[in-house]
Amino acid sequence: MAQSVKKTLIGLKSGKMSVEKALDFLKDLPYKDLGFAKVDNHRALRRGFPEVIFSPGKTVDQIVKISKRILAHDGLLVITRADRKIYRRLKRSFPKIRYAEMARIVYLQKATSVARKKGLVLVVTAGTADMPVAEEARVTLEIMGNRVETLYDVGVAGIHRVLDKKHILNKADVVIVIAGMEGALASVVSGLVSKPVIAVPTSVGYGASFGGIAPLLTMMNSCSPGVAVVNIDNGFGAGYLASLINR
Amino acid sequence: MAQSVKKTLIGLKSGKMSVEKALDFLKDLPYKDLGFAKVDNHRALRRGFPEVIFSPGKTVDQIVKISKRILAHDGLLVITRADRKIYRRLKRSFPKIRYAEMARIVYLQKATSVARKKGLVLVVTAGTADMPVAEEARVTLEIMGNRVETLYDVGVAGIHRVLDKKHILNKADVVIVIAGMEGALASVVSGLVSKPVIAVPTSVGYGASFGGIAPLLTMMNSCSPGVAVVNIDNGFGAGYLASLINR
Amino acid sequence: MAQSVKKTLIGLKSGKMSVEKALDFLKDLPYKDLGFAKVDNHRALRRGFPEVIFSPGKTVDQIVKISKRILAHDGLLVITRADRKIYRRLKRSFPKIRYAEMARIVYLQKATSVARKKGLVLVVTAGTADMPVAEEARVTLEIMGNRVETLYDVGVAGIHRVLDKKHILNKADVVIVIAGMEGALASVVSGLVSKPVIAVPTSVGYGASFGGIAPLLTMMNSCSPGVAVVNIDNGFGAGYLASLINR
Amino acid sequence: MAQSVKKTLIGLKSGKMSVEKALDFLKDLPYKDLGFAKVDNHRALRRGFPEVIFSPGKTVDQIVKISKRILAHDGLLVITRADRKIYRRLKRSFPKIRYAEMARIVYLQKATSVARKKGLVLVVTAGTADMPVAEEARVTLEIMGNRVETLYDVGVAGIHRVLDKKHILNKADVVIVIAGMEGALASVVSGLVSKPVIAVPTSVGYGASFGGIAPLLTMMNSCSPGVAVVNIDNGFGAGYLASLINR
Amino acid sequence: MAQSVKKTLIGLKSGKMSVEKALDFLKDLPYKDLGFAKVDNHRALRRGFPEVIFSPGKTVDQIVKISKRILAHDGLLVITRADRKIYRRLKRSFPKIRYAEMARIVYLQKATSVARKKGLVLVVTAGTADMPVAEEARVTLEIMGNRVETLYDVGVAGIHRVLDKKHILNKADVVIVIAGMEGALASVVSGLVSKPVIAVPTSVGYGASFGGIAPLLTMMNSCSPGVAVVNIDNGFGAGYLASLINR
Amino acid sequence: MAQSVKKTLIGLKSGKMSVEKALDFLKDLPYKDLGFAKVDNHRALRRGFPEVIFSPGKTVDQIVKISKRILAHDGLLVITRADRKIYRRLKRSFPKIRYAEMARIVYLQKATSVARKKGLVLVVTAGTADMPVAEEARVTLEIMGNRVETLYDVGVAGIHRVLDKKHILNKADVVIVIAGMEGALASVVSGLVSKPVIAVPTSVGYGASFGGIAPLLTMMNSCSPGVAVVNIDNGFGAGYLASLINR
Amino acid sequence: MAQSVKKTLIGLKSGKMSVEKALDFLKDLPYKDLGFAKVDNHRALRRGFPEVIFSPGKTVDQIVKISKRILAHDGLLVITRADRKIYRRLKRSFPKIRYAEMARIVYLQKATSVARKKGLVLVVTAGTADMPVAEEARVTLEIMGNRVETLYDVGVAGIHRVLDKKHILNKADVVIVIAGMEGALASVVSGLVSKPVIAVPTSVGYGASFGGIAPLLTMMNSCSPGVAVVNIDNGFGAGYLASLINR
Amino acid sequence: MAQSVKKTLIGLKSGKMSVEKALDFLKDLPYKDLGFAKVDNHRALRRGFPEVIFSPGKTVDQIVKISKRILAHDGLLVITRADRKIYRRLKRSFPKIRYAEMARIVYLQKATSVARKKGLVLVVTAGTADMPVAEEARVTLEIMGNRVETLYDVGVAGIHRVLDKKHILNKADVVIVIAGMEGALASVVSGLVSKPVIAVPTSVGYGASFGGIAPLLTMMNSCSPGVAVVNIDNGFGAGYLASLINR
Repeated sequence: MAQSVKKTLIGLKSGKMSVEKALDFLKDLPYKDLGFAKVDNHRALRRGFPEVIFSPGKTVDQIVKISKRILAHDGLLVITRADRKIYRRLKRSFPKIRYAEMARIVYLQKATSVARKKGLVLVVTAGTADMPVAEEARVTLEIMGNRVETLYDVGVAGIHRVLDKKHILNKADVVIVIAGMEGALASVVSGLVSKPVIAVPTSVGYGASFGGIAPLLTMMNSCSPGVAVVNIDNGFGAGYLASLINR
Repeated sequence: MAQSVKKTLIGLKSGKMSVEKALDFLKDLPYKDLGFAKVDNHRALRRGFPEVIFSPGKTVDQIVKISKRILAHDGLLVITRADRKIYRRLKRSFPKIRYAEMARIVYLQKATSVARKKGLVLVVTAGTADMPVAEEARVTLEIMGNRVETLYDVGVAGIHRVLDKKHILNKADVVIVIAGMEGALASVVSGLVSKPVIAVPTSVGYGASFGGIAPLLTMMNSCSPGVAVVNIDNGFGAGYLASLINR
Repeated sequence: MAQSVKKTLIGLKSGKMSVEKALDFLKDLPYKDLGFAKVDNHRALRRGFPEVIFSPGKTVDQIVKISKRILAHDGLLVITRADRKIYRRLKRSFPKIRYAEMARIVYLQKATSVARKKGLVLVVTAGTADMPVAEEARVTLEIMGNRVETLYDVGVAGIHRVLDKKHILNKADVVIVIAGMEGALASVVSGLVSKPVIAVPTSVGYGASFGGIAPLLTMMNSCSPGVAVVNIDNGFGAGYLASLINR
Repeated sequence: MAQSVKKTLIGLKSGKMSVEKALDFLKDLPYKDLGFAKVDNHRALRRGFPEVIFSPGKTVDQIVKISKRILAHDGLLVITRADRKIYRRLKRSFPKIRYAEMARIVYLQKATSVARKKGLVLVVTAGTADMPVAEEARVTLEIMGNRVETLYDVGVAGIHRVLDKKHILNKADVVIVIAGMEGALASVVSGLVSKPVIAVPTSVGYGASFGGIAPLLTMMNSCSPGVAVVNIDNGFGAGYLASLINR
Repeated sequence: MAQSVKKTLIGLKSGKMSVEKALDFLKDLPYKDLGFAKVDNHRALRRGFPEVIFSPGKTVDQIVKISKRILAHDGLLVITRADRKIYRRLKRSFPKIRYAEMARIVYLQKATSVARKKGLVLVVTAGTADMPVAEEARVTLEIMGNRVETLYDVGVAGIHRVLDKKHILNKADVVIVIAGMEGALASVVSGLVSKPVIAVPTSVGYGASFGGIAPLLTMMNSCSPGVAVVNIDNGFGAGYLASLINR
Repeated sequence: MAQSVKKTLIGLKSGKMSVEKALDFLKDLPYKDLGFAKVDNHRALRRGFPEVIFSPGKTVDQIVKISKRILAHDGLLVITRADRKIYRRLKRSFPKIRYAEMARIVYLQKATSVARKKGLVLVVTAGTADMPVAEEARVTLEIMGNRVETLYDVGVAGIHRVLDKKHILNKADVVIVIAGMEGALASVVSGLVSKPVIAVPTSVGYGASFGGIAPLLTMMNSCSPGVAVVNIDNGFGAGYLASLINR
Repeated sequence: MAQSVKKTLIGLKSGKMSVEKALDFLKDLPYKDLGFAKVDNHRALRRGFPEVIFSPGKTVDQIVKISKRILAHDGLLVITRADRKIYRRLKRSFPKIRYAEMARIVYLQKATSVARKKGLVLVVTAGTADMPVAEEARVTLEIMGNRVETLYDVGVAGIHRVLDKKHILNKADVVIVIAGMEGALASVVSGLVSKPVIAVPTSVGYGASFGGIAPLLTMMNSCSPGVAVVNIDNGFGAGYLASLINR
Repeated sequence: MAQSVKKTLIGLKSGKMSVEKALDFLKDLPYKDLGFAKVDNHRALRRGFPEVIFSPGKTVDQIVKISKRILAHDGLLVITRADRKIYRRLKRSFPKIRYAEMARIVYLQKATSVARKKGLVLVVTAGTADMPVAEEARVTLEIMGNRVETLYDVGVAGIHRVLDKKHILNKADVVIVIAGMEGALASVVSGLVSKPVIAVPTSVGYGASFGGIAPLLTMMNSCSPGVAVVNIDNGFGAGYLASLINR
């Protein structure tokens, strides 16, 4: 977090930190070169949130090394699409690390690292099977300091379920709508609210849903303006963007 | 219509028609070979409705010749996707012919040719731009003897418009839902009624609607069962099928 | 089923049920909120058939909990795409539950819950490999109270097999045609009958069948009107729609 | 605008408006049924902005009629994808109407109809050819009361052009990035800022850009979180969403 | 034709042709370099048929120049996808040139240039609109010396039309089946005969026929073996291949 | 085989077979209904070759039952895409059954069942990895009585390998070209010969070969006429068609 | 060109240019902001070649303004995909401007602006219809100072045409292969040479060539290594890259 | 390598090698026919590098046999996409064989077989997960005698990481850019350098990256000229081409 840089500068100015230690901290800016990875230590300063590790395609060893560099520099580590094996391995080095299993997120957060935000983000799903994606969004939002509420399984097959919750929709500042199959829920919700809607197509479905292409196109073509779309199953991206909007 | 065959046989039996004339009529069964076309005169007997002419790719001359053969045999001529030129040309030979311009249907129907059906078919559109497809369905339905009502421009961007019409939805025996862009209306309507829903994706939209692929996929993946889909912009096919269901 | 609501109201009126018990039953209308799922108890009233559970993406635990809520309210539980594990787990709680293995449907149906329908639905397949989808349609139809007959393996490679069965095609009130590979059977059957045809493309095939896209497009473009299409492998949806038509 | 309803109620309460006139105004809520269109007069109340007319597929006559209903009820008329013909026709009835030609937007806005917003929205394009889409976004934003700045032709072929403008990027509250061809600019911009980025793929390009699919996929797969995507060439949708975020 | 080379050699041997003239003729083997084109004069020797000119993308000037080179060398000129303009221009230089308008083929054939073949090729179409493609095949076949019969408009919507012609199907040595829309006719015909079937998908259709992709996939996935497919609308290629098979 | 029917009729006429036995044999014409399958016993009469079993999607039990019906009627059983398990199971009932493992074909052929053909079919592959498909074609061809030669691994990366074999190409009556990756070999071979070329795209390749779409399109668009294409990996279909051509 | 900057600096140093004039020249570095365009004057320094104008989507006015800024700064103006109208308009301001019509390139080049390169680039096409793309490459290469030779119309339908030119292929330092339809020529050429091959798919073809997708995939999947692909019809890009390689 | 042929000829001329032995060596030119494979021994002469074995779809036995033929003839064996099993098996016959595990390349190189090249090739990746593809390129380049440097994990989410390395980019003679997800890095790098850029899309990503289609399209549509693209994950092809350019 930018907090770490700030703390270093304050420590230096106040005399509580030696020039050597400050230099040591700052020399990894703007990134730390590990050979197989350039850890973007500058990101927290630039974007308000440190680099997040996307697990697929990385070896557990690589993830451990990058994690150590991030924690050496920032107060916050987030690893997405992480399986239990990654969690167990990091647990050995960082006993306080946590694992949100359904969300597949491993994270470690120092108490003071994130400022709480005032707005409310609502995470809505069309079906129960969309929950892993929704949880990825929810956990991301909470780590980033947002108030979150959820409204799961209110798909358009029984539209009274979402109409019945208009009061919850109305009090939200940002709405994330997560749906697979035909993905119609995003348009419907957008038509009911005056807040930005982030739509997440999911790969829930079969046959002509083509692994999420069907809801992606549905959401992309929403007849109701005020909707934008992130990648299929990208709960993290939706949560991250909602948090930027919620500032 | 099968009526023509029946009338021939009755005429023969009752002595009002000579064997020669009857033979003459029947010799074109089961089809009349025009070289470039085999007019399926048997279709009315088999399917309860004579062959319908789909205009694109046929020359006006070919259409005129096929029309004459159909009218020589059946009491009902229907030409779809017909422009005004085809209409004008046929008008010369058949002064009673009619043209439903928005529906692009040219037709000529002898008074007694179709039995009226009891059920009600409701044609619903998401937007005003879907109307040509809807009119193609509506005119087809009326020619085939159905009672039809329409509910246009009730897309999900303002869902109260369709919820407000639940009483109309409930009294229909078959519902045709026509929508372009994201095509979400079919799922929503299907979730509200206990009647079969025929969904027609339209090419209304732009960009990632890909000429109707987006609503086609949406409708195909409807999370609400009881929906089946016809080709993009196929108002005729939807009307035809609804009429078969309405028997 | 709507039956349950009716029984409650009758019970109350006749004095056989206390106000408390009736209230307890009705408080779950229009849906029961389980957090991860909103069970749509209102659906039977609205659509004539209770909510059906689509298994993929749900944990066995979630399925069990939703099943219990549905059975507490309706006389009919249907779970599609269910494997044997789900069946065994529910069997413990509901000994009378049944499993149609080829159809992958788990169901429990109280004797009086569905009214029998008069019409006949015919389920036709092009090949033997299309049978799991056909059985999903057949079992769905029988649960919903329809008379069903089947005509399996009559694909167009040997067209005399289907032509030979015209009498069966003619006596049906609705025809479901299920085919993979090139899916030509739907057009052929539709050209032979005067009844609505519901076409189901299947993922049977290889190479350029692209998991069912080839037969889907074939069916969508049928040169014979009177055909509508449901999702690839969606036997349940075809059966459900046929049952709505057969009312 | 909701303003109109409020004014009616205040007028009524203060005695400045008769009950008859108020009723007359309110009877078109929640929508006005024109047969071919249901004008969603309730939308301003619900969403904070009245219905916007999307021109393609509508006849000029239909657009005129819908425009009159909207202006009878709201202080703000917006018509997108409008050609000069539509503008000229409406000009006759509404002399104060305006036309933003490059943006293809016709609009008429009563002075007090929209509250000004504090935040700044920045509209960025990769190339000069993306300008019509950018102007659609910009005009939409200005009508909706936002402060807007533009940064055109800063595509990644000369990345110093966008890096050089970091100070402008940093002062924006929302950034809209518009790009055709390979659409890489959205990821790059998102990596530089801590604000939400709305990405608009355009149909600018040829060959394997497939009318905008290439930049759409690029933006959808952005390796930098904080980006969401709207439909190809959808400048209006991007502007609308940015305005909702900027509240 | 290889005839030309043979004639040259015979002429030389018999003393009727001077060495100089023979050399002059042979110096353009194996191809004549026109800069913008290398006319493949060797093709007739190698493949039994001279190079054929595909018009699109070539200027009329280029076509004229290539035509002259081919006629200087071979007894047979064939130009496909040719419009009337090309025909008129060549007519000036070669008064005996002919134009098959519906087939869009311009050709000039010296009397003795092609040996007649014994077998019969049957060209079948599903609809009247497929005729231009069918005529391209038919004219190609006749130029190449084949006996051809046609069977037009026998699509599967009225399957008795093709079943009724089994005797014609059976007497053919090769069958070309041409169909747009869903393209089911190829499978059906193949299931009826013991001869090779060449299937030609056409761009006849709309919506989900995607310019011929639907029938192409249908034909590719034929459940009946003995079918192979050529490009969409490629009547020439089908005729050419049928002629090779008919040798 | 048609042989079986002929033998029955001869046996009956000559008095060697009782009417009862003949009737018993003929009652399964034109197909035997097994419920899950209609075995097309008429196919050998109609097409010159009995029904072939495509294994995927059928249970081993179903395959055994269909196999028995075919062998009860015809002298030839062919099962494609068969794994060793199917072979072992059938081996128990039919000890003479054979398994071509690389070709994945199980077959049993009575000595006199197929007439030998005079022509030569050449099977060419671009690479070693295309061999399973090539072997499927080769074994099919041999079962159907054709002379076959093979030319494997002569892809265009080293074009001298195929040019060097022109004499073999020239003596063939039909050429099957099998290639994955970019599939260019079919065009090249077709340009060298005056015989029909059947092209088989294979799923050999990765990335943008999209499981065989790349070579399929290549072959479909061959600039050299005289090529037709069968489904991806469809060695059986290519062999079958080549055999029909080779009659 | 970087030449301009160098000249300025030399002029300044030698006293031939005043500080004011030098400043005036340099103040447009690294780009000139025209509002609708940021002319990348730094590009010549960075990439060795100034910005090139891609015409589509730009108004003639915009092109004129950008052209003037480029010529004020660099010795070389290149405009691609330019029609005759753009040429005529610029001709008024810059009489020495030239137009390569088939290549659709407008350019103006000061005599000393580009260093000649030693290597030879060979531009090969499969057909005559590929020439506009080839000419775009050729003209680009010549403007950039390369020696170029062309080899047109040597597609694989007559493979001896390209084999016959091996000596030309071998003397080239870079080969550009341009082909539509099935695009097989790139693989074949690559297999014959030891030099880098740049492949350009063209939109020449019809049906399943899908506007150039077929040759694009063919080239992408080349079984012969040493090939890379640029966008469909992108002759400019191929020429530009070949010139970079030829340095 | 061509070295082997040269050595044979020198040996013969100098009398150090018998005619018999030379003949024995040369008789496998231009290829060795193993039946299932034609080993292209001529390739080293023609292309400067011997045939490389692509493992997928070949049995280990086939790979061993082809390897032996190549090593009998050339001083260099390269096997791509090879798993550890292939390595172990070859290790038995060729103890000096090596395995680059992450690159999945098995190779054996005689000391003198390749000439070192002067130029520098830079291999750049967007992320850590792209490393296996990058290593395939790097190892290929080193085997072919190139100097290689790598720059891993410098994707555009933190663009300062690549901008910071401009000095490395500038000293390279060829740059290979490897990226999955949105693949934007290729355009950015190309805009910074004056050297040829070879772009490799990878299958790293999920959802709408469609296994590498998204970065492939991105790279294909690069707004910065000087980029060409190889197949998805084709590190070998990129390395091979870079080596040809680096000659």
